[in-house]
Amino acid sequence: MNIILLSGGSGKRLWPLSNEVRSKQFLKIFKTDDGSHESMVQRIFRMLRKLDENVSIMVATSESQIASIRAQLGESVGISVEPSRRDTFPAIALASAYLHDVKQVSGDEPVIICPVDPYVDEDYFRMFSKLYAQVEKAEANLVLMGIEPTYASEKYGYIIPASQNPVSYVNSFKEKPDPLTAEKYIQLGALWNAGVFAYKLKYVLEIAENILGTSSYQKLFDSYNHLPKISFDYAVVEKERKIQVLRFSGEWKDLGTWNTLTEAMSDEVSGNALTVDCKDTHVINELQIPLLALGVKNLAIAATPDGLLVTDKASSDKIKNYVSDNRPMYEKRVWGEYTILDYRLQNDGHNSLTKHLIIKPGQHISYQRHKHRSEIWTFTDGSGKLILDGVVSEVKRGDTVHIQSGMKHAIKADTELHIIEVQIGDELTEDDIERLDWNWQEF
Amino acid sequence: MNIILLSGGSGKRLWPLSNEVRSKQFLKIFKTDDGSHESMVQRIFRMLRKLDENVSIMVATSESQIASIRAQLGESVGISVEPSRRDTFPAIALASAYLHDVKQVSGDEPVIICPVDPYVDEDYFRMFSKLYAQVEKAEANLVLMGIEPTYASEKYGYIIPASQNPVSYVNSFKEKPDPLTAEKYIQLGALWNAGVFAYKLKYVLEIAENILGTSSYQKLFDSYNHLPKISFDYAVVEKERKIQVLRFSGEWKDLGTWNTLTEAMSDEVSGNALTVDCKDTHVINELQIPLLALGVKNLAIAATPDGLLVTDKASSDKIKNYVSDNRPMYEKRVWGEYTILDYRLQNDGHNSLTKHLIIKPGQHISYQRHKHRSEIWTFTDGSGKLILDGVVSEVKRGDTVHIQSGMKHAIKADTELHIIEVQIGDELTEDDIERLDWNWQEF
Repeated sequence: MNIILLSGGSGKRLWPLSNEVRSKQFLKIFKTDDGSHESMVQRIFRMLRKLDENVSIMVATSESQIASIRAQLGESVGISVEPSRRDTFPAIALASAYLHDVKQVSGDEPVIICPVDPYVDEDYFRMFSKLYAQVEKAEANLVLMGIEPTYASEKYGYIIPASQNPVSYVNSFKEKPDPLTAEKYIQLGALWNAGVFAYKLKYVLEIAENILGTSSYQKLFDSYNHLPKISFDYAVVEKERKIQVLRFSGEWKDLGTWNTLTEAMSDEVSGNALTVDCKDTHVINELQIPLLALGVKNLAIAATPDGLLVTDKASSDKIKNYVSDNRPMYEKRVWGEYTILDYRLQNDGHNSLTKHLIIKPGQHISYQRHKHRSEIWTFTDGSGKLILDGVVSEVKRGDTVHIQSGMKHAIKADTELHIIEVQIGDELTEDDIERLDWNWQEF
Repeated sequence: MNIILLSGGSGKRLWPLSNEVRSKQFLKIFKTDDGSHESMVQRIFRMLRKLDENVSIMVATSESQIASIRAQLGESVGISVEPSRRDTFPAIALASAYLHDVKQVSGDEPVIICPVDPYVDEDYFRMFSKLYAQVEKAEANLVLMGIEPTYASEKYGYIIPASQNPVSYVNSFKEKPDPLTAEKYIQLGALWNAGVFAYKLKYVLEIAENILGTSSYQKLFDSYNHLPKISFDYAVVEKERKIQVLRFSGEWKDLGTWNTLTEAMSDEVSGNALTVDCKDTHVINELQIPLLALGVKNLAIAATPDGLLVTDKASSDKIKNYVSDNRPMYEKRVWGEYTILDYRLQNDGHNSLTKHLIIKPGQHISYQRHKHRSEIWTFTDGSGKLILDGVVSEVKRGDTVHIQSGMKHAIKADTELHIIEVQIGDELTEDDIERLDWNWQEF
């Protein structure tokens, strides 16, 4: 079975836990049977593999999520990297072309597109083999999964089926309605559109040929930044007449706000936090300092290097309106992670910023130099190799190095390496970086 | 007029804003007429000086508060430093002896003892001249101020007066009662004991002579660590028969819990924080990262380097039961201040800790060395003089210095000096410090 998981960004709705580079699907908030915790994406992977151990899963995502995906799903998972964000049709076309050109999947094989972030159980994935079989029957070009609504929600798109049968042709699609209209749709037997689509691989490749001018993976990849921003709904679903829908009445939750996310969380408290006399309150503390919640009700409380949130759960869908685009204070990268501890921005343009970097054993940061800042590194744990203007030296806990602006530098960790980095300069941005070549293979 | 202000610690009830070294009386939460903010201790000082510009005010406190007192009240304020905490009688005896021996105040002059932390207005201090006059009349050895109760509180001690006159002899004192008993007391015309006492200076000196064996300031100071821990109530008030009380019916608030403190705060929000659709909610954010409170009611929210608190105001008196004695993550010192940014404690005894130090112009830290840790300093702003094993050098923004364990070191700021300090060692405590001599006068 071929599955393409769409792993998008979750934006600001789960601030301060989500930002440009950290998305809800990577938060380890679900308890597994052995007591450990897993994320949405890990949970979906585990379930899919349990139902079909030969399932071929590919994740369609942006470069910023690669580190998190590799860290959570391992090195072997297939990733179709979108060079930039171009909406869902180019993303699905690129991933489909990858399956065809690189993975050599036949154009007649069915493919299922599935978002990575709903909270569902195994029943949901059991539907996938029915979707697969339905595509193979070729009664329709596109087969969707429709969720039986549990209330008249304004948050979802609706599918109006031709009949109430388990499999039905689709009469029409409706955008997010107001509650009264939603109620009418439900009386007509409408279903929520969960964003799960199944088709024969060649179907989308043909549409890509028509709309994007090519179905070649390499050509799509190379021209990706110039492809039109166009949704799969607009490019495919709305124009297709032969669509069927499979009804699903099992558990399906969209974890898009703190309110719905906390409903699905296994633990009320995560991190260095204590709740006393609290009711229906969830706390996530990713900071080192302790958090105490006392006598509060119906709150979601979150503390991360990006910020502090205290919200009534019912109000939590308003967060996105009040959060600005600050630089992320915490990032996971392929080589490890960093947290910004302190910064000091001055009117005279002399700025400083302190980071805690953790570099994983065997990993390295790229050989680079900066124009606008010098960096002072203090190694607080571990050991590794430092390259400074081409000269290699061994470094370990207690060593310091002063990297003047313009000096070429890189660091490779032998054991997990902790660095306190102090940046000083007139411009302290991630953009002030010139990446240089270094022969890491032979290093 | 001679006034002794008792400036004690506020313990954990206002965690995370108060700790061993930071007390509520130094929080700048009251707006003045010119729009700036002042603390309780600044407010009391300003009012006392306004009513009597020749008032002689002395603060009785411990060494840990000297920096805050000097920073807020200036260098000229008199401070009677308690070498250790020995309860209120030794503290008042020491301050009284200081007035007599050092300030040459006559034994016949009245003195008023006043706690530093109630929230009061000028009417309260206008009572002080009446107290003063009453002491001079010598009808009693001790004259108290009694607050007319506004409700049957369990939190205060009660004074049962002989009459309802503005000045009355005292029949008895009652410990903190339950609400029903408090109600009975109030029906008897009882008053709250506000901890304001007035007496002729020699009165307390004579009792010190009896109980502590001396009334000499120098002898009390030298033997202070061995004096009995005994309260002024127990040593003086409960044994005295000739006591009068002055009734006071104006504004008086004890700002001992978040609930009462926030009632008196001028602003609902302080620091990098935003409240949206909130009601009766106060936020203090002393961290750099933003705080968002959304749709919550009746909460006190505080974020400091010591911790994060979200509490229903009515529950806030329970905080002290749930807060442990962690080392303060932020301290003001005579020379400046520091904040702990990050720490990493490991099982193998290799620890690291990162601090941001700010040293005020002209100030210095003591010449010292450590046995168990090395320190790496990165100067991120300002300039100063570094002493390292006796050698003096100039340092400025961008410089670094590696202080190995055992190396003698000190730093003096010429302009405000910012240092990121990384400590590495097997024991990272404030106790691992050996202070050494340096001739700062000629430096």
